[in-house]
Amino acid sequence: MVTVAVDANGADLGPAEVAAGARAAAGDGVRVRVFGPAAELGSAGEGVEVVDAPASIAKEADPASAVRRTPEASIVQAARAVAAGEADALVAGGSTGATLAAGLLHVRRAKGVHRPALALPIPVPGAPVLLLDVGANAEVRPEHLVQFAHMGAAFARGVLGVDEPRVALLSNGEEATRGTSDVQAAHGLLAGEGGRGLRFTGNVEGTGLVDGQADVVVTDGFTGNVALKLMEGVSSTLVGAIRERAKGSPRAAAGGLLMKPALRGLRDELDPEAQGGAYLLGLRRAVIVPHGRFTRGGYARAVAVAARAVERDVPGRTHAGLEAAGALRRASEAAATVPDA
Amino acid sequence: MVTVAVDANGADLGPAEVAAGARAAAGDGVRVRVFGPAAELGSAGEGVEVVDAPASIAKEADPASAVRRTPEASIVQAARAVAAGEADALVAGGSTGATLAAGLLHVRRAKGVHRPALALPIPVPGAPVLLLDVGANAEVRPEHLVQFAHMGAAFARGVLGVDEPRVALLSNGEEATRGTSDVQAAHGLLAGEGGRGLRFTGNVEGTGLVDGQADVVVTDGFTGNVALKLMEGVSSTLVGAIRERAKGSPRAAAGGLLMKPALRGLRDELDPEAQGGAYLLGLRRAVIVPHGRFTRGGYARAVAVAARAVERDVPGRTHAGLEAAGALRRASEAAATVPDA
Repeated sequence: MVTVAVDANGADLGPAEVAAGARAAAGDGVRVRVFGPAAELGSAGEGVEVVDAPASIAKEADPASAVRRTPEASIVQAARAVAAGEADALVAGGSTGATLAAGLLHVRRAKGVHRPALALPIPVPGAPVLLLDVGANAEVRPEHLVQFAHMGAAFARGVLGVDEPRVALLSNGEEATRGTSDVQAAHGLLAGEGGRGLRFTGNVEGTGLVDGQADVVVTDGFTGNVALKLMEGVSSTLVGAIRERAKGSPRAAAGGLLMKPALRGLRDELDPEAQGGAYLLGLRRAVIVPHGRFTRGGYARAVAVAARAVERDVPGRTHAGLEAAGALRRASEAAATVPDA
Repeated sequence: MVTVAVDANGADLGPAEVAAGARAAAGDGVRVRVFGPAAELGSAGEGVEVVDAPASIAKEADPASAVRRTPEASIVQAARAVAAGEADALVAGGSTGATLAAGLLHVRRAKGVHRPALALPIPVPGAPVLLLDVGANAEVRPEHLVQFAHMGAAFARGVLGVDEPRVALLSNGEEATRGTSDVQAAHGLLAGEGGRGLRFTGNVEGTGLVDGQADVVVTDGFTGNVALKLMEGVSSTLVGAIRERAKGSPRAAAGGLLMKPALRGLRDELDPEAQGGAYLLGLRRAVIVPHGRFTRGGYARAVAVAARAVERDVPGRTHAGLEAAGALRRASEAAATVPDA
């Protein structure tokens, strides 16, 4: 039996929508414990526990300090439940910053991990591409990138069902000599000992995020975040422009109507809710971060992904992968490596 | 009268296509001097001079060394003609690396400029957004980013016809505290003295490249190159997926046919040839880098853009902007700042 702690606060559609998603995911080996305003969460039931935690810090400007000074906040209570072993994984979609901060403070970094990273499955036609880091660490060192590669690969194997994920580094050229000095150094490590157990395929350019060249793409949180927002921007601009044009004449409008069912199929295939959100990797337990605008379906997927990460022991696989490659942080190294939230 | 030197080698459609574009742009105050295999360039004529320079280094793996050891190469001859004052600007689309190398070696950096940058007008619905650097410098310092801001603004004012361009820094969040330490430092400089004469609007996220928030977006060449390739990838993946779906059923295919004229209009609006290619800023003379796959129309636009940059004295405006903001490189600073080609 896997128990998933779910923070119901902060979602665009409100706590009731999150609770409905959690409820839908419960059963079949999965229990959920939902933290939020009990009055809005509905009643407990088979596999569903409700914890009244109305305080929300999802809109706080400084989430790290809000986490410290608001122990009653739902995200803090949910994270502490995971830390105490009352739940095996955390699903929290209210505020990525607050989830990062609560995750670091309470769930805590896995042993030997320098920095947790936020990984996002990019919905592309065919299989998703796992991009990390998409924003937890604006600046990283080469050994962090090496760890991200192992963390992403373990997740892709365990949860996304990719047996031998192709892992690539994002760069401004495919040659090993391209990139910043940090990217070049990470390339050197991954091509050698540090890539042991990985199927490291070298550098990919920006196109590699969407053309199926790789299953896991590794980068720093600055570049990853720019890439993520840019993809969202290009998709919505392009779709908006096409929609605008389709309204431009009766003829085009008729064509648009005829194409609608086919395009709906495409939209479903590219549905960001289908993967349950982003994954905060490198903590002691699985933490899933659904997007605040998700519907109950997306939250249900997030719970299912979290449960699968527990069942497949992604934290354990990650540790084993890092250890085999000699990529664990040594105890002698500074522990004060807290990422930007 | 403005004379534009044009390298005809290296284009996907061959030297004759480039020559046809150059010829189309000649006249009305513009002369062209075309360097390439004379046998393929057609005859000289009104405003068109042909220089037989069959040697091409467009496919060389190491363009910087190829430029040094191949003085007879068309790109080298064209760049030297500009350096010698026989032409006022350079158009060279064969190989960005070779153009960068020849530009640096012969046209040379403008006085007080740390690093030239490659600027690309992103075709978005409405006005283009000028993104720089898209690949000349994988690593930059804050003062380089400040110079890029002034270089981009001067070009946008002089050539793209934007009176008071909104200049933004690309980052992983809009707050001044987001970004790498270099981006934060550049933000501080641009918000203060270093931004004098600029309309600096702060940070934009990746979405800011396509949503019309800014006219000029400044970043390092690593992030800029990743962004550029990613935009190309997302657009072509999305358009490809829509096209694929449109073929999926007779109904969708009929809809696609009806929408075709409207979508053709959109394609024209987003046509990358319309802006003439990328602009290598920060050299003593204007250098335009059309994409190798451009048709004659794109090369003609590149020549027109180059001529306009000369007529509007973009190098002079850039110098004046940098000087007014106290952002010129001081003579005491190391001159050995050669970008990655």
